[in-house]
Amino acid sequence: MRSFYLFIFLIISFQLNGSIITPNNRSLPFVMDGEVKVFHLIAEPITKEFAPGFFVNCWGYNGSTPGPTIEAYEGDRVRILVTNHLNEPTTVHWHGLILPNGMDGVVGLNQRGIQPGETFKYEFTLVQNGTFMYHPHADEMTQIAMGMEGFFIIHPKEDNFPVDRDFAIFLHEWKIPIGQKTPMPFEMFDFNLFTFNSILYPKIEPLVAKKGEKIRIRFANAMMDSHPIHLHGYEFNVTRKGGKRIAEQVQDSQVTVTVSPGETRDIEFIADNPGDWALHCHKSHHTMNQMQHNLPNILGLNKKGLEEKIKKFFPNFTGLMGVNGMGEMFQMFGSHDHLTMPTPENIAPIGSPGPHGVIELNGMFTILKVRENLTSYDDPGWYENPSGTQAEAIPMSIDKKPCSWMQSSP
Amino acid sequence: MRSFYLFIFLIISFQLNGSIITPNNRSLPFVMDGEVKVFHLIAEPITKEFAPGFFVNCWGYNGSTPGPTIEAYEGDRVRILVTNHLNEPTTVHWHGLILPNGMDGVVGLNQRGIQPGETFKYEFTLVQNGTFMYHPHADEMTQIAMGMEGFFIIHPKEDNFPVDRDFAIFLHEWKIPIGQKTPMPFEMFDFNLFTFNSILYPKIEPLVAKKGEKIRIRFANAMMDSHPIHLHGYEFNVTRKGGKRIAEQVQDSQVTVTVSPGETRDIEFIADNPGDWALHCHKSHHTMNQMQHNLPNILGLNKKGLEEKIKKFFPNFTGLMGVNGMGEMFQMFGSHDHLTMPTPENIAPIGSPGPHGVIELNGMFTILKVRENLTSYDDPGWYENPSGTQAEAIPMSIDKKPCSWMQSSP
Amino acid sequence: MRSFYLFIFLIISFQLNGSIITPNNRSLPFVMDGEVKVFHLIAEPITKEFAPGFFVNCWGYNGSTPGPTIEAYEGDRVRILVTNHLNEPTTVHWHGLILPNGMDGVVGLNQRGIQPGETFKYEFTLVQNGTFMYHPHADEMTQIAMGMEGFFIIHPKEDNFPVDRDFAIFLHEWKIPIGQKTPMPFEMFDFNLFTFNSILYPKIEPLVAKKGEKIRIRFANAMMDSHPIHLHGYEFNVTRKGGKRIAEQVQDSQVTVTVSPGETRDIEFIADNPGDWALHCHKSHHTMNQMQHNLPNILGLNKKGLEEKIKKFFPNFTGLMGVNGMGEMFQMFGSHDHLTMPTPENIAPIGSPGPHGVIELNGMFTILKVRENLTSYDDPGWYENPSGTQAEAIPMSIDKKPCSWMQSSP
Repeated sequence: MRSFYLFIFLIISFQLNGSIITPNNRSLPFVMDGEVKVFHLIAEPITKEFAPGFFVNCWGYNGSTPGPTIEAYEGDRVRILVTNHLNEPTTVHWHGLILPNGMDGVVGLNQRGIQPGETFKYEFTLVQNGTFMYHPHADEMTQIAMGMEGFFIIHPKEDNFPVDRDFAIFLHEWKIPIGQKTPMPFEMFDFNLFTFNSILYPKIEPLVAKKGEKIRIRFANAMMDSHPIHLHGYEFNVTRKGGKRIAEQVQDSQVTVTVSPGETRDIEFIADNPGDWALHCHKSHHTMNQMQHNLPNILGLNKKGLEEKIKKFFPNFTGLMGVNGMGEMFQMFGSHDHLTMPTPENIAPIGSPGPHGVIELNGMFTILKVRENLTSYDDPGWYENPSGTQAEAIPMSIDKKPCSWMQSSP
Repeated sequence: MRSFYLFIFLIISFQLNGSIITPNNRSLPFVMDGEVKVFHLIAEPITKEFAPGFFVNCWGYNGSTPGPTIEAYEGDRVRILVTNHLNEPTTVHWHGLILPNGMDGVVGLNQRGIQPGETFKYEFTLVQNGTFMYHPHADEMTQIAMGMEGFFIIHPKEDNFPVDRDFAIFLHEWKIPIGQKTPMPFEMFDFNLFTFNSILYPKIEPLVAKKGEKIRIRFANAMMDSHPIHLHGYEFNVTRKGGKRIAEQVQDSQVTVTVSPGETRDIEFIADNPGDWALHCHKSHHTMNQMQHNLPNILGLNKKGLEEKIKKFFPNFTGLMGVNGMGEMFQMFGSHDHLTMPTPENIAPIGSPGPHGVIELNGMFTILKVRENLTSYDDPGWYENPSGTQAEAIPMSIDKKPCSWMQSSP
Repeated sequence: MRSFYLFIFLIISFQLNGSIITPNNRSLPFVMDGEVKVFHLIAEPITKEFAPGFFVNCWGYNGSTPGPTIEAYEGDRVRILVTNHLNEPTTVHWHGLILPNGMDGVVGLNQRGIQPGETFKYEFTLVQNGTFMYHPHADEMTQIAMGMEGFFIIHPKEDNFPVDRDFAIFLHEWKIPIGQKTPMPFEMFDFNLFTFNSILYPKIEPLVAKKGEKIRIRFANAMMDSHPIHLHGYEFNVTRKGGKRIAEQVQDSQVTVTVSPGETRDIEFIADNPGDWALHCHKSHHTMNQMQHNLPNILGLNKKGLEEKIKKFFPNFTGLMGVNGMGEMFQMFGSHDHLTMPTPENIAPIGSPGPHGVIELNGMFTILKVRENLTSYDDPGWYENPSGTQAEAIPMSIDKKPCSWMQSSP
């Protein structure tokens, strides 16, 4: 038996005919054993670079978090081998799938835990199509929080709603105190890092599309917070909410789709509006990286005199940040060339260079890049606005009314 | 007048012809006064056993939290007497009901408060059907948080969408510090106990159904957090979102339904997939009991040497928990036979025995038990998987790649 | 160029033909420059009176938070001048609008920041209709949290779904420690003030309607928390979720509509049920003002003896609050005539006088006032219940069962 599986995995070449684009990730290859598609997931600890120079200790599958995307077709018979290379038992729950009860993966209820070093075999026939997930159902508070989760996407037998570009983005929030590398799985609500596919902008690959293409973006969430995902420049239709595809005349038309824990959402639209369009969680703290929230509020403080006094005692002091807002922070802590201040080691960037200055969005943020002409789907660089289509300064000045609480001391 | 009501309640036998199953709870009996159905709610402090040996000081109605389910029919004239046995004023708001303004129950706006010892009479005609709620609208921050809430279910005159099993589950979160008995109503977000019908698994009654039956589950939420409720093994339809029933071709097909505060949701499906299916909130901390979150993060710590040093000074020390994950916690703090460690008094169990080892889910968790054959709706015990339908270990071992941050020291 | 704009704004009278009612706020006037509607927004710090005597340091547009409502028609060419009177750069994102990429307002990505003192020109054609928003996309964590946000409502060319009363309510949460005036923009979840249009009840204007009128209420949310808005006495239809209007047979019928960050929701109903109907966020803490949550829990405490001991040392001590619930708090800290206790300076009221005693709702709360006869839409005062339609005390007393944990010592 053992030699049989080894034989399959070592000699027969893996197949992959998926159509899903999971940015910064990949789909899981499989081998055929007769009529059965055989996949192999290995649960294991990994270290992942979330952003240039920022490494995080995670748990994942096959070297990545989220795990590789499983793609198959309605009607397929699938066998999924799960090897546990963690130091504690795990299982896999096939979230949303209609399958025999013994394959459902809840430890204690549907199966015993897969012990460290063991491999379990799950096998069932796919009777649905849609966007589903896989994740542990043993110590899931810890294991999911550490990054164990992935897409399970079942294509319909006959695709009556084909798209040109089919993206998959897994939402995740983390609590990683500044300077540390290991997330805190006990955290319930006070998270400080928010990711698409466990990657932080600017390391995340943009979503690239040709003008006129039909686009689908699939979102999944297995964590604690809900994430209202906002796409700029478009109205889109919500085509699926976890189960069967929604008939066209019933689909919600939205500009922000909220994805709660345990939910998946598919959205679709025609990429008819060229440009570099922000796609991000609309909770404004979720596009920040590793904020500290216990800072004193000095908005509007009159800092004249105060700064001079501080400089007397601390000659290297460069000035109070936050009196006029937090915008200057992006200049000071940014990731790249515009960096003007030393930062602690192993920290996520705050701000990164864009075509018009520093882009202040990180975390749950990426860019949909729609172009008239494309020779490849590689990153086409920044969008150039046609003449007369960009906001611009005009020579107009309005007298500023004095405001008692906000000093005019920039 | 007084003797009239006493007469009714003491001599005429109560009637109850409801069809709703409120697990671990009941529907409220009524008496007929001519054409009027007369119900009687008594607001009062109670002590409730949430789990074996774990008692909580609550406020509720007629001895229970949630209060008993009120069932009636569209077109009914109902009179609801509300007696206040709290020590402060209360009112009842009939959440979602279309009724005369003076019956709406907002203290100060629609009526004066019902003083301790007083009884108020509400009377109105039911012009809708659906899943509604009742709860106080006086000091509601405290009174609802303490458990005062209940279902108000109005059956349609003619039921064009009959179901075989019609369940009602009220969602609630609590903050009860370990070792204490009284919930903290000031809490806004840092809750540590999460319940279906104010009961913790394993004390909650399972949802039992015969294969092929049509099932409805009604959820209600009057608290602060939203709860994405995930059912395993099924796609279901959301048939109602608080108001009128949704036409079939418009119903969302989902596997997780999010119920926000002030909302009710009905879901329906055919129980065609036998087994023991988990039904739970998908926020993973909401299936934990009384977690403490201010613990240090020792995931991946190399404990060799460290444990020996600790044992030198504390000979009874049994080892650090949490280096390899939190799975071992369920073994140590479980509720029953597998208990291996003494726990504080009056604490909710973490983990309970299942057919395949310890079930690690508590809190907002219960089991849908679907069976081919049933002679009664009593708990049928654990599901036995047909041969060949259960995940199982196979003799395969894959070399473990060394991971720098996670020690191999189980 | 400069003189051209000054000319427009100084000499030509502003036009306004909007139909939106933004309680405690207004729509933004415009001037015509040929076929172009020209609006002017000025970003600036302001001080706003949230409630009588309670002043808050905010940032807003044109003297208000939310900024004035922008109203226009599908097909309009609009030019929006944005002057920055903050001390840090800003931009404006036209949330939900389909427009040229260079007009989208994400700093660094779509444009450079508008520097303090500068004015930028945005110009585009409106190709949609619906309920949209505008807000900064530069240091948005700070700028939105401080109050910078507003409605952008595009009326359809031909209105096939006219309403009689069309209200717009912007949801916002704030963290303002007791006694302070400046919100803390670092806060992610522990907010203590919750507002409709940045106003606290009872200062917010009621929604007044004649019986039989068709009502629309538009909600928008650009902050961190979701808000389930509950309307009493009615079932309503959700007619829009951010994009295109929902066809009637597809609209959700609800009694509570949840509005998440980045979302707008339109609801509609016929005002056929007269009365004073509560409209509020159903998270019970969100109708409280400036709660402190770190108080000890003394519910059920036997205070006999204890109070006497305290009085020995503190003769002015008036008694422990919270032993029987928090209802008495509304009597003590209320805003008006019923005030019985001195409160700190610059604090939001807790409780206000209603027709039947103290109304305990503040924060995200207002009243829909529906009347049979109205001569104007001014506040018609309190509703008088027709005879026999109000909950009332009846002479009935039920023996109170002793409860071990809740003392009978009112």
